[in-house]
Amino acid sequence: MVSVIESNASPDSAFTVVRMEPSDILSLAGQFVVQYYTVMKKCPSGIHRFYKDDSSMIREDTPVCGQRMIHEKIMSMNLQDSQIAILKLDALRANGNSVLIHVAGEISIANEEFRRFTQCFILREQAPCDFYVLNDIFRYQDYVYGDLKNNVETNDDHLAKVNEYSPSENVSHCSMPHSARDVRSYS
Amino acid sequence: MVSVIESNASPDSAFTVVRMEPSDILSLAGQFVVQYYTVMKKCPSGIHRFYKDDSSMIREDTPVCGQRMIHEKIMSMNLQDSQIAILKLDALRANGNSVLIHVAGEISIANEEFRRFTQCFILREQAPCDFYVLNDIFRYQDYVYGDLKNNVETNDDHLAKVNEYSPSENVSHCSMPHSARDVRSYS
Repeated sequence: MVSVIESNASPDSAFTVVRMEPSDILSLAGQFVVQYYTVMKKCPSGIHRFYKDDSSMIREDTPVCGQRMIHEKIMSMNLQDSQIAILKLDALRANGNSVLIHVAGEISIANEEFRRFTQCFILREQAPCDFYVLNDIFRYQDYVYGDLKNNVETNDDHLAKVNEYSPSENVSHCSMPHSARDVRSYS
Repeated sequence: MVSVIESNASPDSAFTVVRMEPSDILSLAGQFVVQYYTVMKKCPSGIHRFYKDDSSMIREDTPVCGQRMIHEKIMSMNLQDSQIAILKLDALRANGNSVLIHVAGEISIANEEFRRFTQCFILREQAPCDFYVLNDIFRYQDYVYGDLKNNVETNDDHLAKVNEYSPSENVSHCSMPHSARDVRSYS
């Protein structure tokens, strides 16, 4: 089974990198994800401290804005006993000394089945070497593709379900509803 | 099979949204992806026009910076005859009037098998309603999870391969190499 790697990050502290070298964005991203997922595992009630009042995130098709609303959303998700495997981490420097991070991995919550997920973050630097999460989009892959890992459809089966819709229709405020008619496709 | 939806975007033009209302970030993201993937399909040699000299992207573990290098990278990828299905689109407003976009879908290039991918973009506004791609991270999901859709491992088989490494080790400039020892995990 996987090994434990956790930081000693306190959920009471903001995320602060040990050092910040412009050329080593991925190292910064690595430090961040260790702290973030450690707090998610050990103390979900503290994870809102990674966010500020101008932060926003998407969970379950719902955009949530501001630290207080993010805290309430996270507390409603019952993240106890999570296990997380990060399988791919990418990062690029963005504008305003911020960092774009893309994570692909698997997560099990409350001893349920592992599910594949992707998550992208924008970290924003508020002071030298002191970052918070400005944006955060989380997606379960089985939710996107309509299957679980051991119940995978064939390409043809899957694509046969894809419907057309106009780009100007059916757009919600920040995130598309999850239904077949809201799938945009090209061929 | 899927239906054709394509914009009339010319690869000679920058990406420009029809209108920009702050509350409708997803509509902007929808317009962008229609134009972006239409150009990718019809004229890959023009897709570098979505990028500028301060843009960066990650393809195949390699960070590529600047419009010229991005063009060379795209031309080396032989994107002819691509078919793309966008199955999930999320977007959030970010800092500096930029927009974070997350796409999950499937792509077939040169009539090869469809592969699942995720892609995240930061669009940066350079003038009112005029955006370019500042950052772009593309990942094939079979590359992340080590399987193809019809050859899926069980959770246990997969996680048994996950190894530990120190966050300070094995980090490349912008993207981690794809090997088992470079997987960071928590349990």
